[in-house]
Amino acid sequence: MIKVGIVGGTGYTGVELLRLLAQHPNVQLQAITSRSEAGMPVAQMFPSLRGRVDLAFSEPSLDVLSACDVVFFATPHGVAMKQAPELLANGVKVIDLGADFRLTDLPTFEKWYGMPHSCPDILAEAVYGLPEVNRDAIRKARIVGNPGCYPTAVQLGFLPLLRAGLIDPAHLIADAKSGVSGAGRKAEVSSLFAEAGESFKAYGVNGHRHLPEISQGLTGMTTDKIGLTFVPHLLPMIRGIHTTLYGRLTRDPGSLQALFESTYANEPFVDVMPAGSTPETRSVKGANTCRIAVYRPQGGDTVVVLSVIDNLVKGAAGQAIQNMNLMCGLPETAGLTQIALLP
Amino acid sequence: MIKVGIVGGTGYTGVELLRLLAQHPNVQLQAITSRSEAGMPVAQMFPSLRGRVDLAFSEPSLDVLSACDVVFFATPHGVAMKQAPELLANGVKVIDLGADFRLTDLPTFEKWYGMPHSCPDILAEAVYGLPEVNRDAIRKARIVGNPGCYPTAVQLGFLPLLRAGLIDPAHLIADAKSGVSGAGRKAEVSSLFAEAGESFKAYGVNGHRHLPEISQGLTGMTTDKIGLTFVPHLLPMIRGIHTTLYGRLTRDPGSLQALFESTYANEPFVDVMPAGSTPETRSVKGANTCRIAVYRPQGGDTVVVLSVIDNLVKGAAGQAIQNMNLMCGLPETAGLTQIALLP
Amino acid sequence: MIKVGIVGGTGYTGVELLRLLAQHPNVQLQAITSRSEAGMPVAQMFPSLRGRVDLAFSEPSLDVLSACDVVFFATPHGVAMKQAPELLANGVKVIDLGADFRLTDLPTFEKWYGMPHSCPDILAEAVYGLPEVNRDAIRKARIVGNPGCYPTAVQLGFLPLLRAGLIDPAHLIADAKSGVSGAGRKAEVSSLFAEAGESFKAYGVNGHRHLPEISQGLTGMTTDKIGLTFVPHLLPMIRGIHTTLYGRLTRDPGSLQALFESTYANEPFVDVMPAGSTPETRSVKGANTCRIAVYRPQGGDTVVVLSVIDNLVKGAAGQAIQNMNLMCGLPETAGLTQIALLP
Amino acid sequence: MIKVGIVGGTGYTGVELLRLLAQHPNVQLQAITSRSEAGMPVAQMFPSLRGRVDLAFSEPSLDVLSACDVVFFATPHGVAMKQAPELLANGVKVIDLGADFRLTDLPTFEKWYGMPHSCPDILAEAVYGLPEVNRDAIRKARIVGNPGCYPTAVQLGFLPLLRAGLIDPAHLIADAKSGVSGAGRKAEVSSLFAEAGESFKAYGVNGHRHLPEISQGLTGMTTDKIGLTFVPHLLPMIRGIHTTLYGRLTRDPGSLQALFESTYANEPFVDVMPAGSTPETRSVKGANTCRIAVYRPQGGDTVVVLSVIDNLVKGAAGQAIQNMNLMCGLPETAGLTQIALLP
Repeated sequence: MIKVGIVGGTGYTGVELLRLLAQHPNVQLQAITSRSEAGMPVAQMFPSLRGRVDLAFSEPSLDVLSACDVVFFATPHGVAMKQAPELLANGVKVIDLGADFRLTDLPTFEKWYGMPHSCPDILAEAVYGLPEVNRDAIRKARIVGNPGCYPTAVQLGFLPLLRAGLIDPAHLIADAKSGVSGAGRKAEVSSLFAEAGESFKAYGVNGHRHLPEISQGLTGMTTDKIGLTFVPHLLPMIRGIHTTLYGRLTRDPGSLQALFESTYANEPFVDVMPAGSTPETRSVKGANTCRIAVYRPQGGDTVVVLSVIDNLVKGAAGQAIQNMNLMCGLPETAGLTQIALLP
Repeated sequence: MIKVGIVGGTGYTGVELLRLLAQHPNVQLQAITSRSEAGMPVAQMFPSLRGRVDLAFSEPSLDVLSACDVVFFATPHGVAMKQAPELLANGVKVIDLGADFRLTDLPTFEKWYGMPHSCPDILAEAVYGLPEVNRDAIRKARIVGNPGCYPTAVQLGFLPLLRAGLIDPAHLIADAKSGVSGAGRKAEVSSLFAEAGESFKAYGVNGHRHLPEISQGLTGMTTDKIGLTFVPHLLPMIRGIHTTLYGRLTRDPGSLQALFESTYANEPFVDVMPAGSTPETRSVKGANTCRIAVYRPQGGDTVVVLSVIDNLVKGAAGQAIQNMNLMCGLPETAGLTQIALLP
Repeated sequence: MIKVGIVGGTGYTGVELLRLLAQHPNVQLQAITSRSEAGMPVAQMFPSLRGRVDLAFSEPSLDVLSACDVVFFATPHGVAMKQAPELLANGVKVIDLGADFRLTDLPTFEKWYGMPHSCPDILAEAVYGLPEVNRDAIRKARIVGNPGCYPTAVQLGFLPLLRAGLIDPAHLIADAKSGVSGAGRKAEVSSLFAEAGESFKAYGVNGHRHLPEISQGLTGMTTDKIGLTFVPHLLPMIRGIHTTLYGRLTRDPGSLQALFESTYANEPFVDVMPAGSTPETRSVKGANTCRIAVYRPQGGDTVVVLSVIDNLVKGAAGQAIQNMNLMCGLPETAGLTQIALLP
Repeated sequence: MIKVGIVGGTGYTGVELLRLLAQHPNVQLQAITSRSEAGMPVAQMFPSLRGRVDLAFSEPSLDVLSACDVVFFATPHGVAMKQAPELLANGVKVIDLGADFRLTDLPTFEKWYGMPHSCPDILAEAVYGLPEVNRDAIRKARIVGNPGCYPTAVQLGFLPLLRAGLIDPAHLIADAKSGVSGAGRKAEVSSLFAEAGESFKAYGVNGHRHLPEISQGLTGMTTDKIGLTFVPHLLPMIRGIHTTLYGRLTRDPGSLQALFESTYANEPFVDVMPAGSTPETRSVKGANTCRIAVYRPQGGDTVVVLSVIDNLVKGAAGQAIQNMNLMCGLPETAGLTQIALLP
């Protein structure tokens, strides 16, 4: 059994890790820390876990965490980079669901996150945890920067087109929509039911922190320079991300459907839908799946890709466990076979 | 492996049966029938099942169904009673998620469902599938009438009080609220998003089909005559039932909390919440659990019970599988250990 | 034109006052104060008011408010009682949408709100602003305590029955459900979209601040002692309250429908629905109307009343303006004729 | 008073026309027809209108409608073109909220709507009812084709850019999102609460009927050929459209903010938001307003426009009344001054 610790388990990615890990056949939950809630049984905060998770939140402690095989950080940026070095030194594998180990370029990190990076050497070693791109490196990694939710959906959608060199990489558009759980379990007026319900809006149009992460990922898929317009929007629902991606074809693409199907033929968690389908976010609610459809409307020179994920699963906790499975030599799908909850 | 067939799989209880059975360790899905959709792959109608359920809907056929060990009917009333006799004669166990085998009194059935019963002898043999009340009989049953969603939540809430003889059985009140999926996957104006969203109303105040079913169940818990006022309401959400039950105490009840906890101490799917808790429907979303809390406001003579279930799981498909497990000698919780999806 | 000031306009009752007053034919908006947001244009916080309300939030100032004819307090309890005495002394009429002037019994106020009352003399003078009960007194009042949202819906529902002496006043049950806007525009985890959405729960079962207010109101409708069980619940929607009221008949009531219709025949804002109807909260969304239906299920001895209001209109801002109209000698319906927004 | 008739008032645009017209100071509602519901009081179907609209649905009748000054068609395509000729001949002005008089090119109409047009001569005379583009022609029109909901939002967003010749008209992208009420009050599985709630998807990617309408409108704003990719999506909410528009700049645009503000400086129903704002659909819920914001992310060569409307108001009934006002010489804003309902 893999002994697992979680740092910062009071948010939505935390409870989602707990839900999935408590049902994982090869995992033993060892510790879950929260400075603010130390002592409170986890199931008191999240009654869905009553009878299934007996742990209480504990004070963060290097000793306790060092006794784990794997530690997940479900924390705001800036936390994992403080604690990761010691854990790694103690032989613990680290998976950061925050942003500390995603951006390889230091100035970019510091510009978008407004703080210096405290362990550039470990950042240099960290692997970006998108298995469909970096599977082999993840298998060997000691530390993984788990991708953001939007970046997961956008990269998986553009990947076949960019690798095949079919679209102009300088003029990509990602129109992305996320459920409110993406904003986290934080007491903020803008996330109130009476604010976010029955309404829809864009946000961060001039610049969202996921923009440099996506650009970095897309850059790795082509030799040309990436130019991306990324507009995120807030959906009046809890879970789910839908991205609508637009690219301009630079040559005859042949069958886009065949291209996407072959690209993902062996991927356990990417499902290319039949031609003419439109993936619904609910079809992946609670599941670690990304469903994708590709279109060339009116046979023109614009290609449209639709991709959906559950932002808390393939966009966070599920993908983190997928990475853990790879890092620990487990079957990649272990503990990740839940079927989406529909309706 | 138990070979399972489903009759009428195009509704919400049908897809929920599929979700749960596809993950059940002891089940092999054999057939799912739908006259209207014969030939269509199940996963085309419900993309959440892509890659997990390969069956296509088939024409109802006695041969195919008779090759099953268990057949579930997820059909409107009137269907199961037509087909059950032959299946039973062929040695198949039958679980009806509809209403054909719930009411033991023929005139009551005929009054509320507006049709004669076609197999009164089998009705007489059928067991009402509420395991917390009828576990032993279910184990030996060939045919089970699976309880309705409201009746499950109301009966589990009143049971400790009625058995202990603490409340006046002649003046019970059940104020019940259900998500829209309870109305089924039928094209009706009243269930449209733009009709049922951002609104709340009562319905069926003068008489709902679950009233006689609940009354029958409560009658079995006491020697006195039951008088029940049952008011169902429609919630602007998809899944979940919450019932708020009111009873008038007839004597000093002692510790109601202790009574409820001891009543359900050994029940795997009934969770008595700590005193002062208020169960949320989302704490059981996707799970086969009923969570209950009990109150005596201001120490007065009115007792208030709160109970929540997922109408599609403990209120339908999950409870049906719990019954199957009992009928087939499997562990009662087999295939029913999913943790609720929260948030 | 009536010159109007609002103290504390950053919440939902504040913006609702602004929406209604900006369209009121006899009102001139003079000032809206907020210590925390002083200087910010109101329409920047609430873009729905762009082009319609040009005011900016200002520091609370006795001078500015004293130049008004009427001042509304849309503030937490404890604020209005501090400022009302001086305003009244300056000849300003005061309407408090908070709780400072609702409860006439001082110890009750202090028990439930946890603070001493700072102006008991003015409290003694204040009129409880439920026009259907206190219209004449409101006309002459200098200061009105505007009813809470739940109390409005519950009192209007029980009033005909209690006045007619038809039900046992010692065993009343009010099962109440409110949209999330009732919790105000406060950054609290429990009101987040991802917490309150797709779920339903009771709260405050052991005692809610509206309980003593309702009991006080009902007490005025009968000579007998009131015993009330009040269970509020949180609905996954923004606006609307639905109460389901239960009373035990003590004698043959005759036609309940006729009783309700005659009671409210001349009320501009109470609509008794036809027999057999179930009022939907959306039928009053944005309108100052309370719709009511009455039932006697199965002809038994339990009467069921359904009442719906928009918690922000008839449950707060609309009723406050109705009171202003009465206090200022305007037509009672002035500025309150909007039709509900459906769907 | 303008005497008004409505043909087909049982849908959402019908009830919205009633809500607005019942509060219009210059209108007398004369008749509302529905073959299927003839005889039923309108307020029975839509209780929000109780006490405000006394009409009952009547059989469609040329006599009754010919006694009106203006007749609105809130009907599926194919109905208005059958009845409009006689009404016009009788001196009645006609406003069609359906699609019969929007597309000026006959083959385009017949291709997308699958039927021949029955009165091409009247189609040739009809004016496309987008006041911000065609105000003068509308003033003189006898018959107006009221724009579709998506086309209104998209055209108002692109108009300043195309008129100024700033973007490449051959590669426009409109990523549009609509609430479920846009699908109408039709009993369809895909519009059920349990289907459309808590989910998001695209639809009609290969071709939506609003595509030719938008293309026609945009074509009128430039001398170059229009190429448009239009992807509509379904939002889990009732009212509101948000379009996110992308164009490639062909030259230095100067201040886009100033361009938009000057373009719409005198428009009563178009509100250009301050730079950096993101319009929310709820800020126009129930109001006849289109709010717009414009961005040039990272100072690149892609311009992003965000526009929101209430699909039932500025996207249907409100715009139709705006057109009526123009056609009848009333103030353009008469009856259209409601403030949006927020929250």
